[in-house]
Amino acid sequence: MVRQSSNARLHLYDARDDAAALLLIDLQQAIDDVDLHGVHSNPALNDRLEELLTCWRGGNGHIVHVRHFSYTPGSPYRSGHAGAEFKASALPLAGERIVTKHVESPFIGTDLEAWLRRHGIARLVLAGVSTGHAVSTTARHAHCLDFGVVVVADACASFPLDEIDGERWSAEDVQRFSLSLLGSHYARIASTREVVQQF
Amino acid sequence: MVRQSSNARLHLYDARDDAAALLLIDLQQAIDDVDLHGVHSNPALNDRLEELLTCWRGGNGHIVHVRHFSYTPGSPYRSGHAGAEFKASALPLAGERIVTKHVESPFIGTDLEAWLRRHGIARLVLAGVSTGHAVSTTARHAHCLDFGVVVVADACASFPLDEIDGERWSAEDVQRFSLSLLGSHYARIASTREVVQQF
Repeated sequence: MVRQSSNARLHLYDARDDAAALLLIDLQQAIDDVDLHGVHSNPALNDRLEELLTCWRGGNGHIVHVRHFSYTPGSPYRSGHAGAEFKASALPLAGERIVTKHVESPFIGTDLEAWLRRHGIARLVLAGVSTGHAVSTTARHAHCLDFGVVVVADACASFPLDEIDGERWSAEDVQRFSLSLLGSHYARIASTREVVQQF
Repeated sequence: MVRQSSNARLHLYDARDDAAALLLIDLQQAIDDVDLHGVHSNPALNDRLEELLTCWRGGNGHIVHVRHFSYTPGSPYRSGHAGAEFKASALPLAGERIVTKHVESPFIGTDLEAWLRRHGIARLVLAGVSTGHAVSTTARHAHCLDFGVVVVADACASFPLDEIDGERWSAEDVQRFSLSLLGSHYARIASTREVVQQF
């Protein structure tokens, strides 16, 4: 199922399209640190990422790897720490763009927007973690900057979330709600299969 | 209850503080258009807004009224349409800042960030609609720009939301989830009472 968002356009969002970039968000080793985040919602995440990357690497589209380097003391996302390294399933190849950010949106404090415009990229296909945090912030910011956005639901993942009244949302509920919110305004929600099948 | 976020600071977030601004988001007449959005989650919204405004108008803090003017044909938020007018409970007074935006984040395409910096404002107290859309996008963007953020839960409101698998989230669930997500990283979540009581 592909849902129309308010900025949906009649364009391709796949690896055939050199005006569409695959934007991978914060796929770093610390996301698998269960003590830090809990268990995420997507046991097939690595498989879906590999499918997307294989498809894009055989196509015309650009690949951008966004990583978060924290300035917070003790954070596993600090530069040089193992947790900040890319996951094995999402390792950049030579020539693929790496964007390093220090706040949640990759459009702040980086040259990402200028780089995308310079390469004529108008459409972004997003995958990564977590769906309700960095992926959502990126999709919202990209939408505000007038990029078309697709979020690949099964190539994203969510973590459990404490509720404000003390209850806890499961990782699966966080994933469903975050995608519902994204699909309501900011992005089309698609599956890896939908994105790769026509290529 | 005031929850600590990752950027919580040991500062006041109330009307005593001339480095804290009350930022009201999209409180325009179209939010009461039930055919457009459904019924929102907060029957006491107008009362809470009036309390916040009364408090701030008696204090030292700045008040910024953000409004959305849509470019979309047929939108009730188009400039000049009744729906785009401020709600009666949130009418700006002479001398209060009005920021007009055309995308969801009030930090894009406006002078808001520069204006806040110029006035030495480091902390934002957010209220308005909808919690999961413009309020969340504003809180996320402000957090990325290193503003401290408080979201006043009972001075915000949510609308029902279609889920990606065809079900529907109630306005109350959307409100609870959106606040949980905001409180997990971007903002402290407070009540109007907590914000005004010490003033």
